[in-house]
Amino acid sequence: MLARMMVLHVEPRWISPYVFSCFVTLEEKRLPFDVVVLDSAKDETTTPDHLARTVTGRVPALVHDDFGLAESNAIVEYLDDAFPDVPVLPRDPRQRARARQLMSWMRSDDTAPIREERPTTTIFYAPTTAPLSASGLAAAVKLCAVAERVIREPNLFGPWSIVDAELAFLLHRLLANGDPVPPPVKAWAEAQWARPTVRAWRERPRPPLTAPRA
Amino acid sequence: MLARMMVLHVEPRWISPYVFSCFVTLEEKRLPFDVVVLDSAKDETTTPDHLARTVTGRVPALVHDDFGLAESNAIVEYLDDAFPDVPVLPRDPRQRARARQLMSWMRSDDTAPIREERPTTTIFYAPTTAPLSASGLAAAVKLCAVAERVIREPNLFGPWSIVDAELAFLLHRLLANGDPVPPPVKAWAEAQWARPTVRAWRERPRPPLTAPRA
Repeated sequence: MLARMMVLHVEPRWISPYVFSCFVTLEEKRLPFDVVVLDSAKDETTTPDHLARTVTGRVPALVHDDFGLAESNAIVEYLDDAFPDVPVLPRDPRQRARARQLMSWMRSDDTAPIREERPTTTIFYAPTTAPLSASGLAAAVKLCAVAERVIREPNLFGPWSIVDAELAFLLHRLLANGDPVPPPVKAWAEAQWARPTVRAWRERPRPPLTAPRA
Repeated sequence: MLARMMVLHVEPRWISPYVFSCFVTLEEKRLPFDVVVLDSAKDETTTPDHLARTVTGRVPALVHDDFGLAESNAIVEYLDDAFPDVPVLPRDPRQRARARQLMSWMRSDDTAPIREERPTTTIFYAPTTAPLSASGLAAAVKLCAVAERVIREPNLFGPWSIVDAELAFLLHRLLANGDPVPPPVKAWAEAQWARPTVRAWRERPRPPLTAPRA
C-alpha cells in the first residue's frame, strides 16, 4: 500500500494525547502526511464531509486515500497493519495484548481524574498550582503502581512501541505539575520524553492559549 | 494453542458491557472457560495475585494458562488472534479498523452520558423514569446518528462481529428506558439482541440488586 494521500486531522493546539499518538506513529514509520487543523469549537469536526468520512466526526482522524478513520488506537493499529516495516506495537501476541490493554486502560475511567485535573495545557502551556483531589491522588498512585509493574529499561516490551510514548505522556501530566512520581518512573518517563519523534511533537509551534483548557 | 485453562473473571451481577463482550466472544468461539466472580466492592480485584496477573486489577480479566489480561477490547483481540477459527472481528483491514474505531468510540467520552444516565441495571433489573439530561439527550442523538451511518442488515460488516453485539447493547440502554431510537435502528438492535450467545448472557441468573447501581 502506498503512503501517498495520507492526511492527519488534528486539533488546533497540538496538545491532544490522541493526536500525539497518531503523529508519533506516522513519524516513527517515516510516512509522509499532510495536516489539516479542525477546530471543534468552530464546528469544523461536524461538517457533512468529515462525518461522512469518519462516521463519528472526531479528531484525530486519518484519511488514507478515500478511507477515513477516527479514534487514535484504531488509527495506530491501522497504520501498523498497513505499514508494518517499522512496527509501533509488539509482534508477540501476548505482548501485543498487553500493549492493547495498557492503551485502553490509559483511556479508561481509572485515569480520568488525572486527565481532568492535569489537562495537557499544564504540560504544553503552564502548570497548575491546584493540588490533586482525593480521587486525582488515588488515580496518580495507581498510575505510578501500574507503571512500576510494567516499566522495563529502556522500553516496556524490548523494542520501542507507541505504548512507551503514551505512558510517558500520561506520566508527564504529573511530572509537569510537580506531583509525586517514584524516581525510577520519573527517569524512565524523561528518557522516553527525549525520543526524537516525541520531541518533534513537543517542539511544535502552538498558538497562544486563549480558549478554555482541554 | 489449546483452549484449556481459560478463566474469565467477572463482576457479581453480570451487567457489565465489558464482561458481556468477552463472554459473547468466548461463546461464539465455543471455547470452554471457567468463571471466577470478583467483587470490587469487597476488594477482590486488588488482591496481590490479581494485580500481579493483570497489572491493573480490573474486571473483566482473562487468564489463559499463566497469562492474565484485562480490558475487554484487548481480551477480544487476544482471543481473535489466538483462536481465529471463528472470527469475531472483520478480516478486511479497513473493516477491522472501523470495528476498532467503533469499539473505542463506544467506550469514549462521547457516549459517557448514556452510560451514566442509563446504567445497565436499567436493562437487566428495572428501567428508570428519569428523563435524559441535555447532554444525555445529545449523546443519544449522536449514538443514533452514528448507528444509522454504520448499520447494515443483518450485520455491520457482513459476517457477524462482536461490534454488532456491543452496539446493540449500547442501544438497549436507550430502548430499555423508552428513549427515542429511530425504528430501523431499534429493529436492528432487537434482532441482534436475539442472537443465541447474546441471549445466553441476558438470561443468566442474577443476584438481587442490593448494592449501588453500576
